[in-house]
Amino acid sequence: MTYCLGMLLDEGLALASDSRSNAGVDQVMRVSKLNLMPASKDRLIVIQSAGNLATTQAVVTSLHEAYGGGDLARDLSLAPTMFEVAGILGAQLRARMAADSSFVAPYGDASGSFLVGGQIKGEGPRLFQIYSAGNFVEATPRTPFLQIGETKYGKPILDRSVTPKTTLTEAARLILLSFDATTRSNLSVAPPIDILLYRADSFSAANLVTVEEGDAYWNALRKGYSEGLAALVDALPPPPAGWGA
Amino acid sequence: MTYCLGMLLDEGLALASDSRSNAGVDQVMRVSKLNLMPASKDRLIVIQSAGNLATTQAVVTSLHEAYGGGDLARDLSLAPTMFEVAGILGAQLRARMAADSSFVAPYGDASGSFLVGGQIKGEGPRLFQIYSAGNFVEATPRTPFLQIGETKYGKPILDRSVTPKTTLTEAARLILLSFDATTRSNLSVAPPIDILLYRADSFSAANLVTVEEGDAYWNALRKGYSEGLAALVDALPPPPAGWGA
Repeated sequence: MTYCLGMLLDEGLALASDSRSNAGVDQVMRVSKLNLMPASKDRLIVIQSAGNLATTQAVVTSLHEAYGGGDLARDLSLAPTMFEVAGILGAQLRARMAADSSFVAPYGDASGSFLVGGQIKGEGPRLFQIYSAGNFVEATPRTPFLQIGETKYGKPILDRSVTPKTTLTEAARLILLSFDATTRSNLSVAPPIDILLYRADSFSAANLVTVEEGDAYWNALRKGYSEGLAALVDALPPPPAGWGA
Repeated sequence: MTYCLGMLLDEGLALASDSRSNAGVDQVMRVSKLNLMPASKDRLIVIQSAGNLATTQAVVTSLHEAYGGGDLARDLSLAPTMFEVAGILGAQLRARMAADSSFVAPYGDASGSFLVGGQIKGEGPRLFQIYSAGNFVEATPRTPFLQIGETKYGKPILDRSVTPKTTLTEAARLILLSFDATTRSNLSVAPPIDILLYRADSFSAANLVTVEEGDAYWNALRKGYSEGLAALVDALPPPPAGWGA
């Protein structure tokens, strides 16, 4: 499994992915699932992936190989909008699934899914979720975050907190708390966590950080949150008489 | 969907179930999924159910009809231990699945699962989870809570907090917070919530309460928790320089 999270905020984008890849409990790998397309001054494109690693790697690698090559159907350096980027990614996923899925079916599920976020000069930052079927939806102010993979454990803290007004600083905390909830409850999601806080119009991924298990900031956040939460729950009112508590 | 939760605590058992039953978005019903077997001085047996409502209702109803009838294979009033109760429940589930599942398969999934908790004089309170296959596992001090149905959203708060030392008062708060997280993130789980805080050796379900949407205590808890959580997250340290926040 995998957990990838993207937020579309007024300040920019907050993107985070774990690094656990496993086929059963015996074959466990560390794989980055947050992939940067080549840097340029007019665009920043980040692809996060979940699902069958062979499928998602093949799609992302083929897009890297096509980058700058001039093929309008595959060259993300020529895509005029992030909507076009999402369409190309979905089409590549469909092509790969058409090639592989019948061969993979006896062994498991070949499907994959993506988040693709970024900005192309002329429009603001945008964020899309590409389904296994190759179709996709876009984040909006009313749906300011998107998730793929093992999404449920980390969703409640986001449902309570994330709005377009959430700052990148707040997003950093919420990302780590959402991943903390997920990694505590599910073994298939694990650090390191790649996090990119992308400030709108910067066209830069210089702030990409990788948070390892034992990271001092994450530990401080975990400790503060765990202690604060325990104190908070303790301070809540007891149930009424009649509950037998 | 459904969400049922049971905790095995030093003080006793804390059991809670939602009341949403749906087959698609058009057929939505309120159904209690926390079922009490007939009261007696030597035993209290509570069955919580998730999955196909026809299956789980049939199993529970057949156990009610057999109660006190003297059939050792089905009469829960004669079961000497809660382990035997779990075995009877699993066997009844298998029988019902054998009868129905091939007929139901063209339309959906006939499977169901249960939590069964309670106490029979001579042993302490016990709690079991019966899988769709009819086999089952028991809660222990290292696994002090069990869940069935839509379990993931409400699990992180429990993973952080529930131990055998958790009091029934604390359990009441954690139940409502776990259900609050679930109902916020998933439409298929909804109030009213049936909650039984069972004190060990009381052999009484007199404290069974039903918490409706808009319940004053739940509202107070939600408000206190939401506000406290927002303040807690705000007070956590900001990310280090270099994250770009």
